[in-house]
Amino acid sequence: MIIEQLDKPVAGSLMQTLPGSAYTDANVFALEQEKIFERMWFCAVRGSDVAAPGAFKTVQVGRESIIVSRNRKGEPRAFFNVCRHRGMQVCSGEDSDGQRNFRCGYHAWTYDLDGKLIAAPNLTRMPDLDRQDYGLKRVHVREWLGYLWVCVADEAPSFEETVLGEVVDRLGEVSNLDRYAVDTLVVGKRIVYNVKANWKLIIENFMECYHCATIHPELTEVLPEFADGLAAQLFVNHGAAFGEDIKGFTVDGSAGVDLLPGVNPDQDRKYYAITVKPQIFINMVPDHIIFHRMFPISEDLTIVECDWLYLPSVVENGADLTNSVELFDRVNRQDFDVCERTQPSMSSRMYTGGGVLVPAEHHITEFHAWHGAMLAS
Amino acid sequence: MIIEQLDKPVAGSLMQTLPGSAYTDANVFALEQEKIFERMWFCAVRGSDVAAPGAFKTVQVGRESIIVSRNRKGEPRAFFNVCRHRGMQVCSGEDSDGQRNFRCGYHAWTYDLDGKLIAAPNLTRMPDLDRQDYGLKRVHVREWLGYLWVCVADEAPSFEETVLGEVVDRLGEVSNLDRYAVDTLVVGKRIVYNVKANWKLIIENFMECYHCATIHPELTEVLPEFADGLAAQLFVNHGAAFGEDIKGFTVDGSAGVDLLPGVNPDQDRKYYAITVKPQIFINMVPDHIIFHRMFPISEDLTIVECDWLYLPSVVENGADLTNSVELFDRVNRQDFDVCERTQPSMSSRMYTGGGVLVPAEHHITEFHAWHGAMLAS
Amino acid sequence: MIIEQLDKPVAGSLMQTLPGSAYTDANVFALEQEKIFERMWFCAVRGSDVAAPGAFKTVQVGRESIIVSRNRKGEPRAFFNVCRHRGMQVCSGEDSDGQRNFRCGYHAWTYDLDGKLIAAPNLTRMPDLDRQDYGLKRVHVREWLGYLWVCVADEAPSFEETVLGEVVDRLGEVSNLDRYAVDTLVVGKRIVYNVKANWKLIIENFMECYHCATIHPELTEVLPEFADGLAAQLFVNHGAAFGEDIKGFTVDGSAGVDLLPGVNPDQDRKYYAITVKPQIFINMVPDHIIFHRMFPISEDLTIVECDWLYLPSVVENGADLTNSVELFDRVNRQDFDVCERTQPSMSSRMYTGGGVLVPAEHHITEFHAWHGAMLAS
Repeated sequence: MIIEQLDKPVAGSLMQTLPGSAYTDANVFALEQEKIFERMWFCAVRGSDVAAPGAFKTVQVGRESIIVSRNRKGEPRAFFNVCRHRGMQVCSGEDSDGQRNFRCGYHAWTYDLDGKLIAAPNLTRMPDLDRQDYGLKRVHVREWLGYLWVCVADEAPSFEETVLGEVVDRLGEVSNLDRYAVDTLVVGKRIVYNVKANWKLIIENFMECYHCATIHPELTEVLPEFADGLAAQLFVNHGAAFGEDIKGFTVDGSAGVDLLPGVNPDQDRKYYAITVKPQIFINMVPDHIIFHRMFPISEDLTIVECDWLYLPSVVENGADLTNSVELFDRVNRQDFDVCERTQPSMSSRMYTGGGVLVPAEHHITEFHAWHGAMLAS
Repeated sequence: MIIEQLDKPVAGSLMQTLPGSAYTDANVFALEQEKIFERMWFCAVRGSDVAAPGAFKTVQVGRESIIVSRNRKGEPRAFFNVCRHRGMQVCSGEDSDGQRNFRCGYHAWTYDLDGKLIAAPNLTRMPDLDRQDYGLKRVHVREWLGYLWVCVADEAPSFEETVLGEVVDRLGEVSNLDRYAVDTLVVGKRIVYNVKANWKLIIENFMECYHCATIHPELTEVLPEFADGLAAQLFVNHGAAFGEDIKGFTVDGSAGVDLLPGVNPDQDRKYYAITVKPQIFINMVPDHIIFHRMFPISEDLTIVECDWLYLPSVVENGADLTNSVELFDRVNRQDFDVCERTQPSMSSRMYTGGGVLVPAEHHITEFHAWHGAMLAS
Repeated sequence: MIIEQLDKPVAGSLMQTLPGSAYTDANVFALEQEKIFERMWFCAVRGSDVAAPGAFKTVQVGRESIIVSRNRKGEPRAFFNVCRHRGMQVCSGEDSDGQRNFRCGYHAWTYDLDGKLIAAPNLTRMPDLDRQDYGLKRVHVREWLGYLWVCVADEAPSFEETVLGEVVDRLGEVSNLDRYAVDTLVVGKRIVYNVKANWKLIIENFMECYHCATIHPELTEVLPEFADGLAAQLFVNHGAAFGEDIKGFTVDGSAGVDLLPGVNPDQDRKYYAITVKPQIFINMVPDHIIFHRMFPISEDLTIVECDWLYLPSVVENGADLTNSVELFDRVNRQDFDVCERTQPSMSSRMYTGGGVLVPAEHHITEFHAWHGAMLAS
């Protein structure tokens, strides 16, 4: 399908959404936790937030509290945050800059940075307690784009097929993302949003630009083609071009900061966006990356953590990032506002059978098909 | 049954109430939403609150958010507050003084004041999208007594048989209410109460005066026969007479404001009360009307909106309504307080089989029979 | 089993805990309310808090609001706090110093201090309303150790076999507790704790001292043997001896207040603790008693009321109790903190099958067996 086709009338053009209950039923949400968030690769923590050996952050993945950390060699490690003795959360604070081991604060069972049980009171009197068997339960972990991705399932799906596969589908090849060298960038700004809406409403919102003209005046000023309501994600490796007078991806179109050196000429003055299911949005512009991690908390609450990533030199030199950050912060607030105003209608009798999708929203249909397949798996 | 009979001992005089679970079970409440509030006529909004074309209020009717408004001709209109596209609430604020059309703030689907879809981005490219089919879903609406009554069911019951029927049962003929010309009056005062009790406890409280001597000292001073614990509602067209020294229906018995001109001599110096099931109380006194609308929110929370209605000239001239309003405001607070202190006991083992009703409370038995019939229908 | 045996390795030494769902499932909690708290003797109120005839306190026992009071003769009385007419809570405030009767604030049904219905409006017109039948429903009540214990079941279990039986199991004979004359003491301090944890976590914590070295530095200073992680409750009538330089059971080991005169030489300079299932801990030291009552509110919330009891003369003379109270207040806060940090893990997949118990925690295994037997009964 090419963009011009969407200009012409299409018979049978309307598709159904999911039924309203998919967004309000606590049982559906529990199934999503089990079959999606606790089974797939989940982007949990920025690697630099746990830079040193023994530094950790605790993070909610599905229904589990997970410790994300590094061992003595600096390798990423992740564990269920549950002591193997009586279950207390081994890491209680939200984070730490670095510690030698994980010591449970209840009975002092102590684990090394690879999770092995190394000490406990009276341990010598319990010969049948194997220190390896009673180590902290490991969680699959992998570092990519400077983030620590975890999978709490016993068997992790192929990272290449799932995570990288989404990048290939969108950009043609992973090298088109690699050029941004996201892992070398640093967090210039982080904003955490509490969104009172189902996580799928947020994904669906991100998957179409039919709403852009209505709610995103600043964004459509910078990216004029977005005013046509046609999502930038429609075409393999299509980037949305900046407007003629636009100097940078900023709230007022003023110049941005230093360009990312790997960006190639095709990518300059363009905006690309990728959705990595189930919970990541990556937005690429020539001088920074906007990286969203969603943490679904309940059927009607989602926490979204958004990082603005820049060249280390830009951040170190104290460059003014205000206009740069404010553009997508406004976009986020505009999007999350409509998601929150959509959530209550999901329980209306009028939405029992769902609503409709116009042709420009066809990515949502694919998302719904994926969602159904995951729940049925 | 005449009032004197209640003075004499009656064998088998005690009747059972509903079981406690009827007031605490979320499933019972969901059934009431479906079978009562979403099926019957529901008094939603004072007409003057949506006076101009395009003025609207959003209101909770059963589990639905409903837009109550007027079209260009000033005719009442009501709609499900759900955009036909992706479901967002079309009207997000609680009210507006008047607008030309209803435009969804998400993708700009726009409906005229009769609900017809009149504009949407790229609408011309979607030939199978019939503008009438995708209009805002209409809700039955009718104006009476100066209020807009809605029915969210597909088929509305007869307004005459249900709403007017209740008036006839109580007053003998509708003309006994018509004389108060309630539709011509204006709101002198409105108070909204959040009552942490099941809606049926509030109705049951209103249906008997056995409690009046205990909790309503001001009311029994004005209406001495209420001290006997015999409800004014017992007899067709019976009004409770003011006490001898009482000059008006005020907290201290002082004179009220200008009489409503239609009130006939029989009705002067008397208080009448009607319950219009499922959620309306109308109190009539010679110089004003006290009109309660209940909005059941959950099995243990009910919002009650109470209007004090006077002649337009009284309100325009800035008459002091303090004593007039304070009488029933106190009655309301006294009643809602006992309802809130009754709610917790509904889950006690002692109330599994319910409590008992004395003869003066026999209207409650009729209410329970009606309630059972509605849920079974 | 003697204490030395615990020093040696024991094959098969690890036992399983309950599964995590036992601490998080609302259905399990409802069953516990029904089969444990509403069936057993429940220690509700300090007798001196309802000293005079007609003084009362309302207290939550299982799912019921219970009035605990005294009749004209000063005998303890307890009633369901539910009016027999329409169910309103007869006693709305939390307590009163004394009143002549219980009068429901809704319709003035009035009960004497033994619960008999003595007055109601129009009562003479209701010949079939038997005043005894419609009295406040009595609850079993018994005074022991200066507390009023109630049982809301129709048939109360034997107080001797259940409550006193626990004391015998722990101390060998009831006289070892009687010597403290707990009923003659007075409340020098009361602290109420809201603990966001299941009640069983609190009991399990109290049943083992394996955690003492880790979280109770002040307590192990006073009671050195606690640092070994061996619970004082392991042996019939075993008391934990104070450290050599410890002058009293205080936060800094300084001297306490006047000794309880009945304490015998074996009991001096020792700490004893008893768990009386399902909700009482009694801590005995030579100069005071620390008495915990737990009120389980939901599967993840427990209110703990803790009394520090001293000789009347000590309290009357205004002795400084700061160091005395602070020791166990710290112990309480340390314990409740780990309970609150354990509660979230109970819903982790890692705790589906529970955790493990080391030999020093074997009392918890017995508690779990008792718990299973109660729920199955």
